[in-house]
Amino acid sequence: MSVYLDNAASTALVPQALAAMSDAWSRPGNPMSLHDAGRRARRLLEESRETIARCVGARPSEVIFTAGGTEADNLAVKGIYRARNAQDQRRRRLVISAVEHHAVLDPAQWLADNEGAELVVLPVDAHGRVDPADLRAELAAHADEVAMISVMWANNEVGCLQPIDELSSLAREFGVPLHSDAVAAVGHVPVDFAASGLSALSLAAHKFGGPQGFGALVLGREVLAQPLLHGGGHERDLRSGTQDVAGAAGTAAALQAAIERAAQDTAAVTAVRDRLLNVLATIDGVTVNSGTDGLPGMVHASFEYCEGDSLLMLLDAKGVQCSTGSACTAGVASASHVLLAMGLDRAAARGSLRFSIGPDNTVADIDHVAAVLPEVVDRARAAGLMGVR
Amino acid sequence: MSVYLDNAASTALVPQALAAMSDAWSRPGNPMSLHDAGRRARRLLEESRETIARCVGARPSEVIFTAGGTEADNLAVKGIYRARNAQDQRRRRLVISAVEHHAVLDPAQWLADNEGAELVVLPVDAHGRVDPADLRAELAAHADEVAMISVMWANNEVGCLQPIDELSSLAREFGVPLHSDAVAAVGHVPVDFAASGLSALSLAAHKFGGPQGFGALVLGREVLAQPLLHGGGHERDLRSGTQDVAGAAGTAAALQAAIERAAQDTAAVTAVRDRLLNVLATIDGVTVNSGTDGLPGMVHASFEYCEGDSLLMLLDAKGVQCSTGSACTAGVASASHVLLAMGLDRAAARGSLRFSIGPDNTVADIDHVAAVLPEVVDRARAAGLMGVR
Repeated sequence: MSVYLDNAASTALVPQALAAMSDAWSRPGNPMSLHDAGRRARRLLEESRETIARCVGARPSEVIFTAGGTEADNLAVKGIYRARNAQDQRRRRLVISAVEHHAVLDPAQWLADNEGAELVVLPVDAHGRVDPADLRAELAAHADEVAMISVMWANNEVGCLQPIDELSSLAREFGVPLHSDAVAAVGHVPVDFAASGLSALSLAAHKFGGPQGFGALVLGREVLAQPLLHGGGHERDLRSGTQDVAGAAGTAAALQAAIERAAQDTAAVTAVRDRLLNVLATIDGVTVNSGTDGLPGMVHASFEYCEGDSLLMLLDAKGVQCSTGSACTAGVASASHVLLAMGLDRAAARGSLRFSIGPDNTVADIDHVAAVLPEVVDRARAAGLMGVR
Repeated sequence: MSVYLDNAASTALVPQALAAMSDAWSRPGNPMSLHDAGRRARRLLEESRETIARCVGARPSEVIFTAGGTEADNLAVKGIYRARNAQDQRRRRLVISAVEHHAVLDPAQWLADNEGAELVVLPVDAHGRVDPADLRAELAAHADEVAMISVMWANNEVGCLQPIDELSSLAREFGVPLHSDAVAAVGHVPVDFAASGLSALSLAAHKFGGPQGFGALVLGREVLAQPLLHGGGHERDLRSGTQDVAGAAGTAAALQAAIERAAQDTAAVTAVRDRLLNVLATIDGVTVNSGTDGLPGMVHASFEYCEGDSLLMLLDAKGVQCSTGSACTAGVASASHVLLAMGLDRAAARGSLRFSIGPDNTVADIDHVAAVLPEVVDRARAAGLMGVR
C-alpha cells in the first residue's frame, strides 16, 4: 500500500488540468504572434488569466504569469523593494515574518546582503501567527523607511493562517505595500485579493492540482515593481519570456476545479485530518504543532526522542509518504526556522513530521498510518537512543 | 488551407514530448521529497537532464533548468556579469553582438543602466555575422575590463550562424567567459557545448518541439554565476523553485527526437525552403536576407514598397502564418535592430517577412504560398502607395 500524505510538496495533476493542457498542445502558437495561430494561443492565455483572476478575486490585468511560486515571491520581494527604494532611498526596511518560506526569506536576505536592505523580522506566537500590534509598532516608528512588507497567507509547514486583513489594513493606513506568499493557501482556503487589500500575492499551480513550473504574481495595478527578467516585455513588461499557454490553461482548469469542489474537499480533508489527529493522540510523546483552524489538510507533529529523518525513512519503507517540513529544504539537517520561531526547542523541531492531506486521501489511508506508525516511532526512538540517525 | 510557417516563434509539441509529459503527470511528486514518489520524480528529472546534456554535448551537472530561453539568457548575462564584476570591479565591459535577441540585449542594457556596465556592441556584416577580428581587437585592448561576452549561436530573424568556434577560442585565449544564446539553434543545427569551448549556452524547449515554459542554461562547471531566483537552492543553488519534472521530460523527449531525426528533417526542411526561395524569386522587388548556410528552415525577405505588417495580415487572411521578425517584438512598429545592423535601410527593414519552416511543412504548403503571395504583395504595395498601413 502506498499512501501519499505530502500534498503540500506537490499535488497530483487533476484530470481537468491535463485535459486543458492536452487541448492547448494540440495546436502550435506563440501568443505574441499576429496571425490566426497566435491569436488563438493569445485567447486561451487571456481566458486562463481571466479564470485565475476570478478565482482569487483579482482583475485579469493584475495577474502576472511566472514559472512558479518562487519566481512570484522573488519578483514581489525584489521587484517591489527596488521600485520603492528607487522612489525614495530612505526606504530600506524590508519587513517579513519569521516564518516565511525560503522563497521570500532568501531574496529578502539577498537584498540585505547586496543592496543595503534592513531586514525587520516580525516574531510569531506559539501557533506561528504574527501579532498585528508588532506591525503597527514597526510602521508607527518607521513608516517612511519601510520599502515593503511580506507576510505569508498560510504557513507551508504548520498551516496556520496569518491575520492578513488586519495586517493589510495597517499597511494601507501607513501607505506601505504588503505582499503575501499565498502559495500554500490558494485552492485550499478562500483567498480574495481585492477584499484582502493586499498589494501583491503569490500562487503556484502545483499546490492545487495544476502543473509544476507555473505560477503567478497578483499585483495591484497601482503597485510599482521592477522586473527580474528582461526581454520581449511580456506580462505588463514585468516578466519577459514566451508565455506558457498550456501551463496557464492547466492552472486555470485546476484552480477552477479546486474552487468548485472547495466545500466537499474541505469536508473530506477535514474528516481525514481528524482521523489522523486521533491516531497521533494514541502515541506517547507526540505533540501536534498545527491547529485545526488553519489549512484543513495540514498536520504537523513532534515526536519525542525521534529524528524526523528516521521517521520519514521508516514510514516511507512502510508505504507512507510525508515530509519533515518544506520540500524545498528536504535533506537539510538543520531545524526548521518556522518551528524555532514558534518556540520549539531544536530537538522537538528536528523530531517533526508534516502530513499534508489532499482530497484523494481516504480514511483507509489513515488506517494504514495507524497500523504502521507506532512501530515506526518505537524504532526511531530506539535508533535515537543508540545515537544512530 | 492553413499553412504554419512561424516555427521559429513556437513549434508544435511533438508526440514524443506529449507522451513523456503525460507519463510524468500520471504520478505526483516533488523531486526534492525524500520518499518513494519524490525519488521517482527526481529520477525522471535527472534522466531528462542526462538526455538533454547528451544531446548538446554537455555534462548533466552543467544543465541548469529554467522556465525558458529568456530566463536562461537573463541568468547568463546578469549572473555571469555580476559574478565576474564582484571578483574584480574593473570588469565592467559587457560585450554583445549587434544582433542579439532582446532576451540578451535587454538584460545587458539593464546592467548598463543600473549597475554600471559598459555595453560594447560588436557590429555584423551584411549577412548578420560578427567578425572575430572585432572581438580580438576588443579583448586585446580591454581583456582585464571585460566581464563577459554574449554572442548568439544562430540569429532568430535571419538564421545566420555565428563563428562560435573562433569567438570561443578568442574568449578562452583572453580568459573571458563567452555565453551563447543558442535558442534558435538547438534542435536545428548541430550544437556541441564541450566542443564549442563556450562557458555557457541557452536553449528553449518550444523551439524544437518541446513545451513552452521550459529551457536550460548550460553552464560550465568552472564558470561562476550569481542566481536570479533565491529560495530552496535548487539547480546547483543557481535557480530556486520546484523543478518542473514533466517539462524536463517533455524537453528531453523532444530534443532527443529532433536529434534522431536531424538528417531527414534537415533534408526535408531544406527542400521546402528551396521551393519557397524559388517562389520568392518570381516576385519583383524581393530581396532575400537569409543565406542558405544558416538555419535550414529560415527564410527572411524584404518586399520593396511594402509594410511588413500589411503583408503579414494579408497573408494571414489567406491562411499563411508567418511573422515580421521575432515574435517577442510582434506589434512593435519599429524596424528590427537585426536588419538595421546588417545594413538594411528602415524601409526595407520594415517591409520584411520571416518564414520559418519546420519538419511538418510540405511542398504543398509552399504551393499555397505561391498561389497567394503575388496578389498579397500587390495589395500591400497598393496600400503602401496610398499611405495606408
